[in-house]
Amino acid sequence: MQKTNSGHFFEDYKIGQVIAHAVPRTVGEGERALYHALYPARHALYSSDEFARDCGLPESPIDDLAAFHVVFGKTVPDVSLNAVANLGYAEGRWLQPVFAGDTLRSVSEVIGLKQNSNGKTGVVWVRTRGINQVGKAVLDYVRWVMVRKRDVDAPAPETVVPDLKQVLSVDDLVIPEGLDFSDYDFNLAGEPHRWGDYEIGETIDHVDGVTIEEAEHMIATRLWQNTAKVHFDLTFRPEGRLIYGGHVISMARALSFNGLANAQMIVGLNGGAHANPCFSGLTIKAWSEVLDKQPTSAPGVGAIRLRLVATKGGDPFELRGEDGKYNKDVLLDLDYWALMPV
Amino acid sequence: MQKTNSGHFFEDYKIGQVIAHAVPRTVGEGERALYHALYPARHALYSSDEFARDCGLPESPIDDLAAFHVVFGKTVPDVSLNAVANLGYAEGRWLQPVFAGDTLRSVSEVIGLKQNSNGKTGVVWVRTRGINQVGKAVLDYVRWVMVRKRDVDAPAPETVVPDLKQVLSVDDLVIPEGLDFSDYDFNLAGEPHRWGDYEIGETIDHVDGVTIEEAEHMIATRLWQNTAKVHFDLTFRPEGRLIYGGHVISMARALSFNGLANAQMIVGLNGGAHANPCFSGLTIKAWSEVLDKQPTSAPGVGAIRLRLVATKGGDPFELRGEDGKYNKDVLLDLDYWALMPV
Amino acid sequence: MQKTNSGHFFEDYKIGQVIAHAVPRTVGEGERALYHALYPARHALYSSDEFARDCGLPESPIDDLAAFHVVFGKTVPDVSLNAVANLGYAEGRWLQPVFAGDTLRSVSEVIGLKQNSNGKTGVVWVRTRGINQVGKAVLDYVRWVMVRKRDVDAPAPETVVPDLKQVLSVDDLVIPEGLDFSDYDFNLAGEPHRWGDYEIGETIDHVDGVTIEEAEHMIATRLWQNTAKVHFDLTFRPEGRLIYGGHVISMARALSFNGLANAQMIVGLNGGAHANPCFSGLTIKAWSEVLDKQPTSAPGVGAIRLRLVATKGGDPFELRGEDGKYNKDVLLDLDYWALMPV
Repeated sequence: MQKTNSGHFFEDYKIGQVIAHAVPRTVGEGERALYHALYPARHALYSSDEFARDCGLPESPIDDLAAFHVVFGKTVPDVSLNAVANLGYAEGRWLQPVFAGDTLRSVSEVIGLKQNSNGKTGVVWVRTRGINQVGKAVLDYVRWVMVRKRDVDAPAPETVVPDLKQVLSVDDLVIPEGLDFSDYDFNLAGEPHRWGDYEIGETIDHVDGVTIEEAEHMIATRLWQNTAKVHFDLTFRPEGRLIYGGHVISMARALSFNGLANAQMIVGLNGGAHANPCFSGLTIKAWSEVLDKQPTSAPGVGAIRLRLVATKGGDPFELRGEDGKYNKDVLLDLDYWALMPV
Repeated sequence: MQKTNSGHFFEDYKIGQVIAHAVPRTVGEGERALYHALYPARHALYSSDEFARDCGLPESPIDDLAAFHVVFGKTVPDVSLNAVANLGYAEGRWLQPVFAGDTLRSVSEVIGLKQNSNGKTGVVWVRTRGINQVGKAVLDYVRWVMVRKRDVDAPAPETVVPDLKQVLSVDDLVIPEGLDFSDYDFNLAGEPHRWGDYEIGETIDHVDGVTIEEAEHMIATRLWQNTAKVHFDLTFRPEGRLIYGGHVISMARALSFNGLANAQMIVGLNGGAHANPCFSGLTIKAWSEVLDKQPTSAPGVGAIRLRLVATKGGDPFELRGEDGKYNKDVLLDLDYWALMPV
Repeated sequence: MQKTNSGHFFEDYKIGQVIAHAVPRTVGEGERALYHALYPARHALYSSDEFARDCGLPESPIDDLAAFHVVFGKTVPDVSLNAVANLGYAEGRWLQPVFAGDTLRSVSEVIGLKQNSNGKTGVVWVRTRGINQVGKAVLDYVRWVMVRKRDVDAPAPETVVPDLKQVLSVDDLVIPEGLDFSDYDFNLAGEPHRWGDYEIGETIDHVDGVTIEEAEHMIATRLWQNTAKVHFDLTFRPEGRLIYGGHVISMARALSFNGLANAQMIVGLNGGAHANPCFSGLTIKAWSEVLDKQPTSAPGVGAIRLRLVATKGGDPFELRGEDGKYNKDVLLDLDYWALMPV
């Protein structure tokens, strides 16, 4: 009997199927320190317990993206081991902060299936929830991937394409319990720019860059227990280890501190595309565009919708060519909601 | 007066000599996170406090191999600084799990001495115990190394070759207090294969591979405070920094999750050989062979004896050539006992 | 309105100006583990909570240099973003140990200004204090840097050159509350050499070396939230990423364990020069010279003043050429006070 996991193929997925992903993970101070070591993360709410308390939280949470990576990592063996491509994200919502000592596991439900016309692959949509040790959901998002069929002659399933929101509305967002930016200390946070200072359409070049090393992206990707071969095994990908897309997301988000230091918490993920693959040796830079702004009911808290673009060169603010395709230097195009002091 | 440590030479060791190794170390959440960042470790008992509690432990222990590396690292300045070769391990027993907050130190006793016929080197056997802050032993193993003589004219000691067990019997193994796999959650653990599903003689190719980077093995080896020059100083070894054998052990063990996800705890080390040196740039893969299976008295717990082989290429399951020597691609041949749900 | 930080220029600084640096940081077990992973740190007081308690402290502090790096890192965006050169340190004093859970922030006061004769740059002296969550200073040091002018036509400020001590006297040093080396365990600490065994003028070659990797110095430098571009962005410095001088300090100090294992705590920084830039691929070695010895009022505690020199090759103990300039292989020349068992 074969003991190793060969992953799921397209014909293995059924609409409504629920997959309880393996290997729960307790996150703690070590993960928090490593996040700061791997990314130039400086958002004060995640750096200082005192700052977090002054904002109404019991202590600094684990970075929102670290929580995302842990939840995402667990899905890899069941969802993307045989994936040809990671096609998109939607309706991502952070439902409550993750604190040191929390134990996370992931559960996915298959919500969409569509065989491709070539008959060899299909698209699978899953809604994944990250759940903590008391059974509360901390994160919820939809992801779709293109997956190979094991048997090209397997019959195509009925096509079900889920109806996903292009953009979460501010009412969809969950503000962490107790969050209060009324007494927000802009000096300690590092920049004076409040929610009211940003305008829709405004773009920000985050200026800084980080040249990527193999050891770093592997350390990060392993930390999230994402064990996809492509990230680690050069004999499997002699053309170069592909860097986990989440590594690029975290790097770009951390770089965006310079200009968006007060976009403290990520609460919504509207969508995201890994426009081009990322490899070691490239230098990641980032720019942002303000897509929307909405007030919230929490004291002193505004929501800002941002496009975060990671590049490996080229001019900032140039996202797509005349053909509508992403420029070759664009690595990531992410659309998210963050919370800022108004 | 010379202040630096020049290590011990063969003629410095005496039968019965007890060496209290220096620099005790408190291990914690940071070491635990780093272990998961450096190795693709996914065994649920070490990943989730909740899973560990469901198995009767107070929380997730520090990985058994991390405990081994810490205890081992302390012995390096006294045992292997002038070692020519690390010859073997035997009778390794994990006596109780190590938890965050524990402080470990190491004590070794010289139990064997044999001068080589060339008169320039000799073999030293030591039994090393790792001891925690309340004086309890957590680990016990025998290791033998070939050590240079300072003075080739120093008289040979009386030859004492310790009588070591080729293999620990299941009665030699210490089951952690409280361990209970009666309600083991195979879904969360990641694979359905229980102790009863493995057959003696069965071999498993663990499929995954990791290409090794300098930064990673140095970070790991330093974490265990193993400061042997060969691992760090390229001017000392211009042909390439030699990777600490324990790094290969941990890498192979973590890779073995894929096929042996339920071989949760390591409790015995019967033997091990570092068949060939490992260098940065190589891709480590692993395969295992089931050598024995024995029931234990603990509820739901079976013992499985495994051969774990790390390779840098070549076909799995090919350990030795016709001449009986290890194939050139074999890095590690380890013989250990693990505990699994029956 | 520009959102990113373009840093301060020479004409922005005024004597008496107080800069409250941004992004407080809570340090913990993760930072402690990472320090041991990034540097071959073995001083027992920082490695073992039990050893620290036997020396009268509540538990192991975060390494003194880690505390320094955190405090220093916060000043970078305000002090050295437009710096041409880091010119010196003086009057550095560790005022109390930093423990896991402490939150640090930094405040600097401008204490000196001197425009250079070229009219394009000037020297700025700042006294920086690291402050913990209860408002107590944990560290205090003076640093001076050469900073560019934004506008070369801006008028020169009145020249103020602070009167700084060449060397702190032993009475300037703050001994941590409760520190007691009366029952110091030299065996556990790793070397028998006590304060009384060192002679003024004595030199020690620390023998060991570490070849530096890009991933490691970036992980370290980010951990301290030092985001100076030169350390991370190869497109900004195509000739090679410059390694943070503090990385060299920590590496050399850790290497100095071999010969100075009992120089446990750093309490004073008299001065320091980064004699030559450090790049990845170099092998760092270290040697020390005993500059002074003084008794202290704490039980069993002596103060030792040490010169710590990091090199990238060459012979130890050769600091300067006949022209009085640092030899090309010298990376660091640091002058500090440490506490040892008498």
